[in-house]
Formats: sequence, C-alpha cells, structure tokens
Amino acid sequence: MNENPSNSRLIFPSEADYGKRLERARTAMKQDGIDVLALSSFDNHRFFAGLDGIASVRPVWFVLPQDGAAAFVSPRIEAPEIRAQCSVPVAIEWVEWEEPAKPPMSFSAALAEHIGKVAPEARTIGVDFDATSARNLDLVRDALGTERIRDVTVTLREVRRRKDAATIDVVRRCADIAAHQFKASCEAVAPGVPEWEVALASRTAAMRRAAEWWNGDENHSPLLQGIHVMGSGSIRSGRAHAVAAGRSMREGELLQLCYCGRPFFGHGICFDRPVQVGSTGLPADVRKIVDVARKAQEAALAKVRAGVTTGEVHAAAVAVIGRHGWDRAMQHRTGRGIGLSDPEFPEIKASDPTVLEAGMLLGIEPGVYVDGIGGARFGDTILVTKTGYEPLTPLDLGRAVE
Amino acid sequence: MNENPSNSRLIFPSEADYGKRLERARTAMKQDGIDVLALSSFDNHRFFAGLDGIASVRPVWFVLPQDGAAAFVSPRIEAPEIRAQCSVPVAIEWVEWEEPAKPPMSFSAALAEHIGKVAPEARTIGVDFDATSARNLDLVRDALGTERIRDVTVTLREVRRRKDAATIDVVRRCADIAAHQFKASCEAVAPGVPEWEVALASRTAAMRRAAEWWNGDENHSPLLQGIHVMGSGSIRSGRAHAVAAGRSMREGELLQLCYCGRPFFGHGICFDRPVQVGSTGLPADVRKIVDVARKAQEAALAKVRAGVTTGEVHAAAVAVIGRHGWDRAMQHRTGRGIGLSDPEFPEIKASDPTVLEAGMLLGIEPGVYVDGIGGARFGDTILVTKTGYEPLTPLDLGRAVE
Repeated sequence: MNENPSNSRLIFPSEADYGKRLERARTAMKQDGIDVLALSSFDNHRFFAGLDGIASVRPVWFVLPQDGAAAFVSPRIEAPEIRAQCSVPVAIEWVEWEEPAKPPMSFSAALAEHIGKVAPEARTIGVDFDATSARNLDLVRDALGTERIRDVTVTLREVRRRKDAATIDVVRRCADIAAHQFKASCEAVAPGVPEWEVALASRTAAMRRAAEWWNGDENHSPLLQGIHVMGSGSIRSGRAHAVAAGRSMREGELLQLCYCGRPFFGHGICFDRPVQVGSTGLPADVRKIVDVARKAQEAALAKVRAGVTTGEVHAAAVAVIGRHGWDRAMQHRTGRGIGLSDPEFPEIKASDPTVLEAGMLLGIEPGVYVDGIGGARFGDTILVTKTGYEPLTPLDLGRAVE
Repeated sequence: MNENPSNSRLIFPSEADYGKRLERARTAMKQDGIDVLALSSFDNHRFFAGLDGIASVRPVWFVLPQDGAAAFVSPRIEAPEIRAQCSVPVAIEWVEWEEPAKPPMSFSAALAEHIGKVAPEARTIGVDFDATSARNLDLVRDALGTERIRDVTVTLREVRRRKDAATIDVVRRCADIAAHQFKASCEAVAPGVPEWEVALASRTAAMRRAAEWWNGDENHSPLLQGIHVMGSGSIRSGRAHAVAAGRSMREGELLQLCYCGRPFFGHGICFDRPVQVGSTGLPADVRKIVDVARKAQEAALAKVRAGVTTGEVHAAAVAVIGRHGWDRAMQHRTGRGIGLSDPEFPEIKASDPTVLEAGMLLGIEPGVYVDGIGGARFGDTILVTKTGYEPLTPLDLGRAVE
C-alpha cells in the first residue's frame, strides 16, 4: 500500500455496484415479504447510495419500494449534501419554518407522504431498528401504522454479509491510512510526551493521507472523526478502551495504540499495536503480555478460513491466553466484522455460530490485560478466503516490539 | 475568556451538583410515576454522572431507582473507564466470552439481573427512547417485560431544561475553545488553501486549548470529535451543512465557518462566522447576504428574554430575511438549546411554543442562503436572563466582515 495516490486509480463503488446492492436488497425483500424499505441508518445510506459524512442531527430516510426507484426523504438542510454525493434523488424535503407551499414540517410527515405516493398499497414497511431510535420509531409507527412496521436488521445483515470488490478496495485505503497513522504515532512517542499529542499526530497523518486519496474531491471530508483509543503505562495500557488523554509517557513503558475507526469514506478498519516508549526495553512481565497477545492473535488468524465458525476463531485466541494463568485477562471478544459500519456483523465471540464465508472482512484483535502490569493487543484487518485469509493491514508492521 | 487556564480554577460539576441533578430526577420520577430509570444515552450519563468520551459501540446503562442508589450496568471493557471518571459505581459487568463465574453475556441480561436486585417490585421502568435504538429497546422489553417500560424522554427534558452553574461554566470553556478555533482558522485561510486544511488548523487549536483546560487530566481526552462544517465559494457557502473538504478557496470569496460541536467534556457550543478569503473585498451581492444574516441574528437576539417563546425569536429572524425577497433563503431553524447534548432542547423554530426561562442556554444562528450566490450565518451561544441574555461566545469577534 505504498503507491502514490495521485498515480493510482481509486476504485470506488460505481453506479453498477450500488445497483447490484439494491438488487440484493430487493431479492431479500421478496424472500422476507417486505414491500418497502425505510432506512434511517447512515451506514445503510452509505451502503446503498454512497452517502457519507453528513450531519446526523436530523433523521434522513432512504426509501426503497420492492418494485420502484430508491429515493431519500431529507430535511432541507441535508438535501444539497445528498445531491452533491449521490445519484439517488431527494424526493421530498421537510423544513422547520413556514412556507407558502406548505412542505411537511417533520420527518415522519414527509416519510408518510412519500411512501403514500410511491407504495400506497404497502402492507409491510421494513425499518432498520438497530439504528433508529425508539422515539423516532414511535413517530414512524404513528405516521404509517404500527401494524405495517417490521424490523429488517437481520435481513440487511444478510444482504451486507459478504463484501463486494468496491468495499474491499475502500477498506484497503483505510488500511493504508492506518499504517500512516502508526508511523506518525511512532515518531511522536517519547518519554515526557502526553498521550493526546500522539493522537493528534496520528489524526493529522490520517487526514493528510485521506486528503491525498480524495485528491481534491469537493464533497468528501478527509477529517478523521471519533475518539482515539490509546493507553500508556501499567494502568492505562491495561484498559482496552482508555482514550488518549493527558498522561505523560515514561521511559520503558508500553503504549498501546489503536487505529480502529473509520478513516476513509466512513469505512471501518481494525489495526492495533503495542509499542515501547524510549529505548531501555520493556520489563519482563510486560514483555510476556505482549508475547502472549501476539501469539493469541496468530492462533486466531491461523484458524480463519471459510467454513470455520467465529466461535472457533475466538476459542483459539482464548486457549492461548488461558494457558498463562492470569485471572480475568480478557476485556473484549476476539474480533468483529469490518465494513461500512462500526462494528459490522459478525461478532467473533464465545459460542458465536456464524460460519465464515470467503469475502467476509474481519478484524482480529484479541487482547491480554493484567491488573497492575499492563495490557497489549495486536489487531489486523483480513479478508476471509476459501483456504485462509488475505491481510489488508500490514501484518508485519510493528509486530516485533523492541 | 483570555485567562490562563493554569491560573484559573476550572469549575466543574461536583458531587454536590450531581447529587442535585439526581434529586431533580427523583422528584420528576415521583410526579410521573416512574419507579426506576434505565438510561442508555451517553448524554444522560454525562448529566447524571459526569461520564464522557468513552467508546459507544456497546450499550452502557445508568440505573436509578426512585429510592435507591444510582449504578451503571456496563460491558467489562468500559467498566474501568467508568470507574476512572465517575463516583457512581459499576454494579454489574457483562462479557463476550465464557468465565467460570458465569457473568451475564448480554446487556439485557445484565440489566434485568441488576434491576431485579435493586428494584424487584418496580412496575414502571423509564427508558430514554430518544437515544436507545429500537432494537435494543426490544431486547429490554423482552428481558424486563413490555408492560413495565415507559418513554421518559420528555420527563428528562424537563429535568435538564434549566442549566446549573456547573454546566454554564463548562460551556464557557467550550466558547473559549471555539474562539481559539476561529482565530486559528483565520490564520489558515488564504487563496489556494483547501477547506480541510482550515478545519485541521481549527481542530488542532481546539485540542491544544482543551488540553490546557484539562491540564494533564489522565482520564479525559481533549480531542475534538465529529465533522467540521465549513463551505467556501458561491455554491458551498450556500449549503448550510457543507463539510470541510477538498475545495481550494479563491481570492474574494466567502468562507462560512462553523464551530458548532462539543469541544470540551462533551458539552455543546454554537459559534458561526463568515469570513472573506484574501483582501479584495466581497462582491456586493455576497456582502448583502452577510449583512442580512447579521441583522437577522441581531433581531433574534434582541427578542430573547425570559417569558418570550422560541417561536417569537424564530419569527424575528424570519422577518428580517423575508424582507429581501429571496426565494427559499432558509435551510434551518433559527437555533437550538445548548448543553450536554447536541442538539439540546428546545428547538427555536416556527410556531414552537416553548417559553424561555432564565438559565436556559441557546444557540442563535439564523442563516441566509441564496442559490448561486452564497450563504452566511452568525451563530452565538447565550444564557437567557430575566431581562435579556448574556453572551457566552464573543459576540463581536468576527462580526465585521471586511
């Protein structure tokens, strides 16, 4: 992933890709008896229409009738953003002020008006309950009739289960950005530096690299969003979700770095590494944690191939960690799906029955956390294949912790 | 707000403040017949317990029995973060792997176990439907009984309606940070610079200033999250929610800057300004838009005092904009509440009946957007008083656009 973005064609979902995704949705709708989809999740908007990175304070709905054209129902403030990014049209806008033409003044009134027009006979309206607030769902039920509303979380999970080439290619860019973040982080790490300065260097590198990939695009922001997980020293490295804050690092400590986020076009990535602060070497007990974390990840990776269950992958990591007699050394599952949501289906956790398929993207990131000593994890993003996996993040980068 | 953070005591919500907030909640629970609150909104966690900036991928529940002690129900991965930030204890942890002690393996099982212990007789369990996904609510209903679950969105809105001194003081820090962002942005603006470079300068300034306020705190991150709204030129400044992207600014153009976000301890702010790119002066038609936007905000501000409705404040801005004969010059309401959520109650929009009270925090930010010419808005955060308002953001900073 060291090519120069300006010389490399960025493979991006095309109209044909979005068309195929819509076809998969229509097939699933027929199977599950859904007449029209009404989706408020920005992750689904990204998957079906390429919408990304807009303000999420007012609900936007993507509507797909089983036999009709897709359209957005949008507050007027987001309509120009949708039009600049997507070929799916905005069919109706709602507003927060009065106008002579009397447009709808709530999202639910606008949604009811649009569905009444494009699918007046619809008996079953599928909503993504996983991303719609219970309060907004109540408003939708009031406007459209409780008896017509059905949860399509599981239906859509199946539609989005295996990744297409366009998704995989975008996640490759995310992996490239995460590698740039890691290198910038390593340059910023030194005794006396507070964690947040490393996070700032990491985020700045992410934005600069993403801006190179976007290459002047006027409608997509390269700015990295969200928290930056990172923890230094025996206490904070031992907390899997410590967020980069004001602690100053000290010579010979461990700093656990995490680049899990959505660095490009809202697509996810998993990439985690422990590094040493300074040059005097890690204490033996910390080094043991790092070694076991590395081996646990390698055991999980060795298990991955189509046909294996996520529970089996999880168990391989747990077996390595369990052998060392630490009490309560786990703080999270072994991994998760990677794609257009964070997290994405499946979860790689105890007894999970999901059978891996070629084309799934996974983050493999088992961690080891020992009270009062510290914690470490190696995390990588991989593409499941028939016989194993292809790494998307640079597996060897930062693997040897000196 | 030019004091040196290291010489200034940061007034922060104290145990006494959180205690008073819990008392207000208990009073409202008695009035509305709620036996126990179960809240999944991170905004409510911040309000009642001071929890902020943790990973939001797994649900965390704050549980408050009407006559018992508050506690968290947390995935194990977030439990140390909660303990480091809050005095409210984590009563029960759920995990994603198997352990000999057989802890609960889902949030809903953990929540049911905890409520069964602390409020076994509870007939009414209040949930914040506005921030709980419909899917998670279904899991809660399955675990606790549909007939016991009630939406407390409106109840909590009333509890959080008027701001206490601690909230106002934290928002003052947000205002200080936004002013630092504005100054850093102005230094970065120049012909030929892409928008995202200005956003990067703005965010870097925000983080550095927030880090000064946090003054080495090891458990709170100064990193600014979220998108950065910003648009340059006749098309993108005319879109209220354009997000800083790859467009290079040109001499004599307008750049609309927006610092609305949550720059400190998860508290919100409203601060917006238009600036000129370069030094040749804005075209007359763009200057007119800027002037009308300024006058619209000043008209809305002049209306603010306790006893006035939000609808009247909105109407004052609309009257100024309407006088200029532009078609569809509005893209959003006149403003919104500011506090621990984004947005916070109330909305300042058409016919809204909310009566302003002293102690409310508002963002006043009417905008003017004209197709093909451009758009502008001035936004400020104010504290409502009996006779008017006190500005929290620097009203005069950037008001004269040269």
